[in-house]
Amino acid sequence: MNSKFIKPGLAKGTRDFTPKDMRLRNFIIETIKSHFEVFGFEQIETPAVENLETLTGKYGEEGDKLIFKILNSGDYLKNAEKSYLIEGDSDKLVPFISEKALRYDLTVPFARYVVMHRNDITFPFRRYQVQPVWRADRPQKGRYREFYQCDADVIGSNSLLLEAEFVQLIDKVFSSLKIKAELRLNNRKILYGFCEKLGIEKKFRNFTVILDKLDKKSWEELSNEFNDNGFSKEVIESAEKLIKLSGNNLSKENIEKIKDIVSSSSIGQQGIDELLTISEQLMAVNTESLEVKLDLTLARGLDYYTGAIIEVLATEHQIGSICGGGRYDDLTGVFGLENVSGIGISFGIDRIFDILQGKDLSEVKNNFKVLLINFGKSTSTYNLKMLNELRNKGIVSEYYPDSDKLKKQFKYADQKNFDFVLMAGEEEAEKAEFSLKDLKSGSQRNISSGLVVDSLLKHL
Amino acid sequence: MNSKFIKPGLAKGTRDFTPKDMRLRNFIIETIKSHFEVFGFEQIETPAVENLETLTGKYGEEGDKLIFKILNSGDYLKNAEKSYLIEGDSDKLVPFISEKALRYDLTVPFARYVVMHRNDITFPFRRYQVQPVWRADRPQKGRYREFYQCDADVIGSNSLLLEAEFVQLIDKVFSSLKIKAELRLNNRKILYGFCEKLGIEKKFRNFTVILDKLDKKSWEELSNEFNDNGFSKEVIESAEKLIKLSGNNLSKENIEKIKDIVSSSSIGQQGIDELLTISEQLMAVNTESLEVKLDLTLARGLDYYTGAIIEVLATEHQIGSICGGGRYDDLTGVFGLENVSGIGISFGIDRIFDILQGKDLSEVKNNFKVLLINFGKSTSTYNLKMLNELRNKGIVSEYYPDSDKLKKQFKYADQKNFDFVLMAGEEEAEKAEFSLKDLKSGSQRNISSGLVVDSLLKHL
Repeated sequence: MNSKFIKPGLAKGTRDFTPKDMRLRNFIIETIKSHFEVFGFEQIETPAVENLETLTGKYGEEGDKLIFKILNSGDYLKNAEKSYLIEGDSDKLVPFISEKALRYDLTVPFARYVVMHRNDITFPFRRYQVQPVWRADRPQKGRYREFYQCDADVIGSNSLLLEAEFVQLIDKVFSSLKIKAELRLNNRKILYGFCEKLGIEKKFRNFTVILDKLDKKSWEELSNEFNDNGFSKEVIESAEKLIKLSGNNLSKENIEKIKDIVSSSSIGQQGIDELLTISEQLMAVNTESLEVKLDLTLARGLDYYTGAIIEVLATEHQIGSICGGGRYDDLTGVFGLENVSGIGISFGIDRIFDILQGKDLSEVKNNFKVLLINFGKSTSTYNLKMLNELRNKGIVSEYYPDSDKLKKQFKYADQKNFDFVLMAGEEEAEKAEFSLKDLKSGSQRNISSGLVVDSLLKHL
Repeated sequence: MNSKFIKPGLAKGTRDFTPKDMRLRNFIIETIKSHFEVFGFEQIETPAVENLETLTGKYGEEGDKLIFKILNSGDYLKNAEKSYLIEGDSDKLVPFISEKALRYDLTVPFARYVVMHRNDITFPFRRYQVQPVWRADRPQKGRYREFYQCDADVIGSNSLLLEAEFVQLIDKVFSSLKIKAELRLNNRKILYGFCEKLGIEKKFRNFTVILDKLDKKSWEELSNEFNDNGFSKEVIESAEKLIKLSGNNLSKENIEKIKDIVSSSSIGQQGIDELLTISEQLMAVNTESLEVKLDLTLARGLDYYTGAIIEVLATEHQIGSICGGGRYDDLTGVFGLENVSGIGISFGIDRIFDILQGKDLSEVKNNFKVLLINFGKSTSTYNLKMLNELRNKGIVSEYYPDSDKLKKQFKYADQKNFDFVLMAGEEEAEKAEFSLKDLKSGSQRNISSGLVVDSLLKHL
């Protein structure tokens, strides 16, 4: 019948999540969501599919290439420019055959959302969003083409209290998840001040992009790269000094130390002042377990950050950043709403998942479960009634659907991690009893059917 | 700077969900999920993006056209057949430029999942899945191009206990959601038996497709359509009798009545026997609020159903089906795993959302929330400490980020539905006090800072 069946496979860079995976993922997401809620963030969702023009031009040239485009439906070649078809010009043909795309991150759709809904939003607007995004990256270990982002942002205030609040939020999330983490803080204004002092502010972007690679490359490689990009020996030496000042705790003393590096730049000075304010606020409320460090080499690739930038590493795992974010001053400008400052962070659910998969968290347990053994039609009504009673009390329970051999039914109970088995053949049904077996201890006893629920609830 | 900004818009047939929408959607999804869990279903997730060949050919010719295809990344025209490009043949070009697509439903990806993971799955496998799907349908009121499906299936058993279980599950879900619902039950085997008796079993599919339109068209229109499709007057008259027997409760007596319509067909007889068994099981455990009716006109368009078919209507809302499903005997065959019977249902989250949006459900409340008023830098440490204390106790709270005018801060509290406001300027901070205002009653009093949390927790 299906001799020519299709060998089932997954699209490259995508994954299935099994029930076991989902228990851990749900635990992670629910933990983060619960902290978002307590901090006053409210959930929104935006569609996976956006107009292509909403997304293009927001992620740089490299990013644009990684956006998955959706083919127009119907006769999509109808209005295609003939010459591009004949030349086989993929790039130029795109606007004719694709007007929609899969979202690349949650930030740009959020900016679109804010502008479209601005009349209904009370600012400052605190929103969170947990949804998948898609990137046509080359798949590799720990990097997928479809993955979840988990973002929280406050938009409509430039108060530095928010910077401190996000540090607190990150602390609480990783404390709950029992992941030892280190937060690295910098301010793009300090980096800009540094460039200004050295007279290389026109190459600010170029400078930060190279600097940002420090976590992946040695200083020697980096210094060569600076050199190749036309930075002078003096600049490179100064950059080395900057790096040496990194990694200290965010104390007032440590911040003072970097003052003279940027002292002549007013923007640089502003960056220092911001760091001092944030540091003061964090002194008021200590973090539970998060270490907060100053990292002057932290630049973050994304162009839209304009103030504080944050990156979080798991201290006991070589897995890269598990959370990051920063302050932006003009995210919504491109959609026509200018000068609205905001700050946001994004948790790396997939890396957090990888870290926790190794651990055996007591919080991520199977439900407590009861299986009713199937002894055939003559006792099905009796068992169905008990099944209904158990479920009405919220006890996870199943009635094995077929009257298979006991061995097979017990194997099912074992493989699916049931805690208890209830058995009632004709004999038990006549006596209005069940035989209750505790699969963990192996003990078994007969019990009146009226007492089954109470007896099981004691174990919940 | 952004003079040429992009007017923000949504892709056709897609939606944003605001925080208010999300509260209701989360309530609906969590309610359904909690019943799924109690019934022993386990959650899985599959990727939104599947290989195109996994999806095509599974939804009929019409369905195939509605699948959103994803353009290959990079130089996608590189390997395109030149002649198709020059002719502008959209259909024939697809396989050359697109190898991935957005999932069209959750059922086919589930079948793929089962076949791929068959060695790790303990059968019968109970899974549920709540994820969006995409269809290039013409958008209209209540119909979207991106919408959620919410499916539960048991695969690997042909026990009729499962049919009864799904009726129970549907009953419990709609009872919890407080939606009055009517379940219509049929069996494709009865329809087949009916066709066999009339000698039109070769036109079975054609017959059911027309019959299935009865909820949208009058009997006269339908009868003309039967006529146009070459069905005889005798067949049409018999079909009318079939329809008249519909809408009765699923009692033994009512089932007996339809026996003679299919008596000469062994498959038809099997359908009757199945209905009788399900009816008996449902007698054992009454539904809470769901009405269960026999509907011999129910056919359901989907070809893969082979036994019981289910459709649920909201009795007080003209909104169409809010849940549907049925028994299938060979869902996984196309992926190489044959003869595995299963049964599943799908809840229409979007229609349920539309129904409940009108009601003011007490279960869908804002969180209880506290706002700390911002009196400037001199008291920020004092307020930050209180903020941290409140959040540690799980009380949803915010510290207004800017020391704006009181009027503006109170407006924020009002618009965002805060329950309480805490105020501490320098005077209160010196006395280690807060002024606590109940925004619902308007009452206000001073309270020692050490008592704030306890006082608020009383209101939780």
